[in-house]
Amino acid sequence: MKTISENACFGGSQGVYTHASTTCNCDMTFGLFLPAEARDGPVPVLWYLSGLTCTHENAMTKAGAQGWAAEQGIALVFPDTSPRGDDVADDEAYDLGKGAGFYVNATEDPWKPHFRMWDYVAEELPALIGEQFAVDLDRQAITGHSMGGHGALTLAMSLPGRYRSVSAFAPIANPSASDWGKKQLGAYLGDDQAAWARHDATLLMAEKGFDGPVLIDQGASDQFLDLLKPEALAAAIAEKRQQATFRMQPGYDHSYFFVSTFMEDHVTFHAEALWSA
Amino acid sequence: MKTISENACFGGSQGVYTHASTTCNCDMTFGLFLPAEARDGPVPVLWYLSGLTCTHENAMTKAGAQGWAAEQGIALVFPDTSPRGDDVADDEAYDLGKGAGFYVNATEDPWKPHFRMWDYVAEELPALIGEQFAVDLDRQAITGHSMGGHGALTLAMSLPGRYRSVSAFAPIANPSASDWGKKQLGAYLGDDQAAWARHDATLLMAEKGFDGPVLIDQGASDQFLDLLKPEALAAAIAEKRQQATFRMQPGYDHSYFFVSTFMEDHVTFHAEALWSA
Repeated sequence: MKTISENACFGGSQGVYTHASTTCNCDMTFGLFLPAEARDGPVPVLWYLSGLTCTHENAMTKAGAQGWAAEQGIALVFPDTSPRGDDVADDEAYDLGKGAGFYVNATEDPWKPHFRMWDYVAEELPALIGEQFAVDLDRQAITGHSMGGHGALTLAMSLPGRYRSVSAFAPIANPSASDWGKKQLGAYLGDDQAAWARHDATLLMAEKGFDGPVLIDQGASDQFLDLLKPEALAAAIAEKRQQATFRMQPGYDHSYFFVSTFMEDHVTFHAEALWSA
Repeated sequence: MKTISENACFGGSQGVYTHASTTCNCDMTFGLFLPAEARDGPVPVLWYLSGLTCTHENAMTKAGAQGWAAEQGIALVFPDTSPRGDDVADDEAYDLGKGAGFYVNATEDPWKPHFRMWDYVAEELPALIGEQFAVDLDRQAITGHSMGGHGALTLAMSLPGRYRSVSAFAPIANPSASDWGKKQLGAYLGDDQAAWARHDATLLMAEKGFDGPVLIDQGASDQFLDLLKPEALAAAIAEKRQQATFRMQPGYDHSYFFVSTFMEDHVTFHAEALWSA
């Protein structure tokens, strides 16, 4: 692992690190915020999964999360959204290939050698940060924006006991029924609808639900409402009687101005779960 | 004036606007955050002047100021740092020409037709926003980062009665004695040392001071300390017996991670001055 940068930030440190990923078969870069408390011992950790076109950097610089994490004494991890490098397959479309890993393990060519973001976020990166930094892997929570909200919700429901709480900002909520999903799940996973279902938050909510609290914020003026399909997830949550808060926020769009507006609420929500006994 | 974008943000609106500037003789773009209170009438306004290489956008997306401004019910203006366009003179160096206006009115060729950022920030842009938006020009304050801290301090001391308070993050504090200053003031203003002195915060502090409170934050691990020369300004403040708080912050560098860390303090500091009777 190599340190790219470390900047003092809200009494703690915002670092950027790169490492040779055996899961993705390429070098991967991630951001990690550690609050001051991490100097004295392991702290709880909140994962932030980013959306389409993002790298590790977008949320790190634009979401305004570090101040709230510092206040709560928790770490933040900002993974990249896809494998990177010259020998990694790509597509001309912004929403397939690099920057659009969709948090799945691809089974189809040309994607399968590198596009294994599920295992990367679920296995390799937590093991690495647990080994290298003062983070307490027994206290993890997860959030994300758009494609990252999809990743957060699907990981949380599929790995019971891993995350104490899950939240999402404008998640891609029902990808197997959306043009933000059908194309990508088809490309990465082929035609197997059962494989798609394992990566659809609405279907997972109907089938499994989540053993802990859920918080979802969705802008009512989001320009991508037709692709996100929040109504499908809201209905599934209600039918499942899932412990959850779903907030439709009037006037807000899909931007980081929306994300940063509600970041305090999300970090506070996760901190409550992370710091409970 | 043309609206480029408006995003809901912390209960208010983060807008980006462009207009034909008669001062700079080109189209100029700026950001404006209006808190929810602006829907009911004019609100106080805090100017944020950015540093080298920045546009209106950097602070708007990375400084984390809107949340605190919303809490205090004040507007934020994010001007660009230079004139823009194909017919605007430029230089290969990142610290001269576009993105490096230094908040002066150039008197030398090739800069003088467009590089008039002093008049733009002091005259044209306040008049425009006063006319077009619910901002109260009787309640203005100003801050900035690096080159923008230089701009904020020099404008505040040169226009008594205009701003109720001034603050700066890692300002270029003594440009007439620094390589971040000598080159630019020479290029824009020629060899007239008296003209340079009118744009040097340390010299203005010694000569005039500021009729109101001053807050300055400087990172002790700033990679540009030799160019910023905070010790010159700190000494001038002390000699002048200026009402001021100067904070040397251990571990912090020159980045927006530093700026965002202390943004709450700066917005709160200005709000106190702006909301006093």
